[in-house]
Amino acid sequence: MKLTTVKQIWENREAYLDREIDLGGWVRSNRDSKSFGFLTISDGSFFEPLQVVYHDSLSNFQTIRKINVGAALIIRGTLVATPDAKQPFEIQASEISVEGDSAPDYPLQKKRHSPEFLRTILHLRPRTNLFQAAFRVRSVIAFAIHRFFQERNFVYVHTPLITSSDAEGAGEMFRVTTLDPNDIPRTPDGLVDYRADFFGKETNLTVSGQLDGEAFAQAFRDIYTFGPTFRAENSNTTRHAAEFWMIEPEISFADLNDAMALAEDMLKYIIRYVLEHAPEEMEFLNRFVDTGLLERLNHVLNSEFGRISYTEAVDILMQHNDSFDYKVSWGTDLQTEHERFLTEQVFKRPLFVTDYPKDIKAFYMKLNPDDKTVAAMDCLVPGIGEIIGGSQREDDYDKLLARIQELHMDEESYRFYLDLRKYGSSRHAGYGLGFERCVMYLTGIQNIRDVLPFPRTVGNCEL
Amino acid sequence: MKLTTVKQIWENREAYLDREIDLGGWVRSNRDSKSFGFLTISDGSFFEPLQVVYHDSLSNFQTIRKINVGAALIIRGTLVATPDAKQPFEIQASEISVEGDSAPDYPLQKKRHSPEFLRTILHLRPRTNLFQAAFRVRSVIAFAIHRFFQERNFVYVHTPLITSSDAEGAGEMFRVTTLDPNDIPRTPDGLVDYRADFFGKETNLTVSGQLDGEAFAQAFRDIYTFGPTFRAENSNTTRHAAEFWMIEPEISFADLNDAMALAEDMLKYIIRYVLEHAPEEMEFLNRFVDTGLLERLNHVLNSEFGRISYTEAVDILMQHNDSFDYKVSWGTDLQTEHERFLTEQVFKRPLFVTDYPKDIKAFYMKLNPDDKTVAAMDCLVPGIGEIIGGSQREDDYDKLLARIQELHMDEESYRFYLDLRKYGSSRHAGYGLGFERCVMYLTGIQNIRDVLPFPRTVGNCEL
Repeated sequence: MKLTTVKQIWENREAYLDREIDLGGWVRSNRDSKSFGFLTISDGSFFEPLQVVYHDSLSNFQTIRKINVGAALIIRGTLVATPDAKQPFEIQASEISVEGDSAPDYPLQKKRHSPEFLRTILHLRPRTNLFQAAFRVRSVIAFAIHRFFQERNFVYVHTPLITSSDAEGAGEMFRVTTLDPNDIPRTPDGLVDYRADFFGKETNLTVSGQLDGEAFAQAFRDIYTFGPTFRAENSNTTRHAAEFWMIEPEISFADLNDAMALAEDMLKYIIRYVLEHAPEEMEFLNRFVDTGLLERLNHVLNSEFGRISYTEAVDILMQHNDSFDYKVSWGTDLQTEHERFLTEQVFKRPLFVTDYPKDIKAFYMKLNPDDKTVAAMDCLVPGIGEIIGGSQREDDYDKLLARIQELHMDEESYRFYLDLRKYGSSRHAGYGLGFERCVMYLTGIQNIRDVLPFPRTVGNCEL
Repeated sequence: MKLTTVKQIWENREAYLDREIDLGGWVRSNRDSKSFGFLTISDGSFFEPLQVVYHDSLSNFQTIRKINVGAALIIRGTLVATPDAKQPFEIQASEISVEGDSAPDYPLQKKRHSPEFLRTILHLRPRTNLFQAAFRVRSVIAFAIHRFFQERNFVYVHTPLITSSDAEGAGEMFRVTTLDPNDIPRTPDGLVDYRADFFGKETNLTVSGQLDGEAFAQAFRDIYTFGPTFRAENSNTTRHAAEFWMIEPEISFADLNDAMALAEDMLKYIIRYVLEHAPEEMEFLNRFVDTGLLERLNHVLNSEFGRISYTEAVDILMQHNDSFDYKVSWGTDLQTEHERFLTEQVFKRPLFVTDYPKDIKAFYMKLNPDDKTVAAMDCLVPGIGEIIGGSQREDDYDKLLARIQELHMDEESYRFYLDLRKYGSSRHAGYGLGFERCVMYLTGIQNIRDVLPFPRTVGNCEL
């Protein structure tokens, strides 16, 4: 079908003015009087809708007068400038056909609905302004991330989702199986006989693609992953989902400073790209969701990210322990309240905290010469807290093996990972960016359920 | 670390000639004589390696002489032109430091290894020419796909992987659970009590994001998904994997012809993009993997894809039933042998077969006026067979409901999908592109295990 889109019209209005246009779209509102009416039409291609004027000269005027919000229409008409009206132009319809009617019980009406209510109609909420903005921006951010890494010659690696290892023991995992729960095969001593399962062994959904990513980084130098990740954690918060997307770049011949520089460049690139490619959506979010959003993001573009060691951060935080729910001392993990205090109150901009105690960080992080801390970094941003966590990786075979043994991890499962330290181990570093946190940060939306198209959380798996 | 990459050198050789360069990379080969030697260095940034010459003036000459293939080195030296040699330039090293040694049992030697052997060392095979080409091209194709759709204003939608529906009954599914298989909770009548499972119900890994994608297409007009998909099918072939990636665009106010035009544009865009952005890799694949690859792809760029109805295709195929393992008659599904015959022997170019019998296609496809066939299309390409399958979707509420009932599907699970036909149903169409098939098609690689970074197949889930 040859239809003009609302985006084409808004972006090339001069070319379309006073010309006949065929347009398909959905009714956002319909105001009629006796002999004419106004439709607001959205076709999803552009955040701003288009006004359509129709008159009783239409053969189906009585039908269109009564058409419900949500209906799909195909409109033929002329685009005319309306210099005295709120909107710069409108379509004067000569013909309107009903592509798909909207039943009277259509749940979206012109009034504003609460995000809570809209979560009960996941399949319809993308038609509202809030979710038009949220999911367009989500898409634009995703592409910005690909562009950023591809422009820098990174190889995009699809690390697997079904895994037989537990990556870093980073969290509770979902089991993946084809065994019939009503008839689980058993070994003679009563254990589950995984030989009968699809992969012939116990398998789970991945919590991180990093370890596999490192293998590719030791071949392609610079790589990134961008894929789904899972946590079967029973945390019913506004920040946690069971299924979410993560970006994990890994760079070789690189240290912690290189990883931080990359992360800062990346975040600034994403912000710049989104401001440029979704200005209408960002304007809406700034107005109706998070006043100050644009100011904050522009401030980030013009700031150098702060850098502070964990030890220095703890010194600062301990002076404010009175105001924290969780008291801080050297060796404790930082909570969101502490992270936000540092980035919002102390630095007033994004901030890297580095060199955490080894005991609160993952086994693969590079041990610092002090033998107490590791070359880790968390990037904290206002409004969110941690958005990125990364590290330089332990590239010394003996130290890595010692750490694996010290933590009583299954050495055999990490044989391939140790191999990377045995055959041409180059120093390397990387980080993980939680994609939904990034979308929340750029949209100002506070609940992770509202930046995920079909959120999966404890007890919730709809559609 | 400030290092120059091999890619920068190859692409800007003039700028680097006769200048001192610091380079990090891995040894591909090392030939030494008494007082000097040659290293071939790959840093993963570029398909072609770089030659490094070193002399006994190096303080660690004896170490470098004996350095094993696979070692990581950091080299300081001067780039000099070598007009009489095979390679256009080389580095004359003034300093070489060993970043990471390579143990004597390094499994990759200079000789060519079989893909079968390399599948046993998934973590090291990306360092070989074949997999440098395969996985760089895979990454470039992935980005080409994103670019194609984003340039056309499509919204990228992350449809969920964990699902409580079975989508289209398209295949065997993996169950996702946190129930302990040694202690499964039961209801009073002995069934599994899924209320105790993470989501409070039975959940699976998705076989397609299409139905959810349609909800977004009825809001954003044009959308695409690009994510992992799963099949728990016990098919141990060179074409099937349990975990693979799929691209599923969905377009509104669009019919089957629009979907075919989009698919053809997309495939040509991808081919053009890859030829332009990975010429060295494509040259290698053409030379060592699939002679005629480049000719075939260029031919596709210059062909209009064929179009033929299923009924016409069957008429042709029946004349050649003698040569097929599976005999064809109207109503049978086409096998790869038939698909390849049509695209390779009859049309000698990519080909859309349309309007299949409704009984061999999914419930959601739009019924044609003949009441026997549906507005489906498969895109067949030489060397592969089906690479894309799509359809116009049934947009009529009553017909869709009737079909769901006729097939005894669970009506309640499709309530949201029926809603899309109740509230502003616009005609719409879409298709699925199997990403790995696409990579196989563009690389000439015959086994799906060799285009997946860490393949998952029956009985195989390594690393």
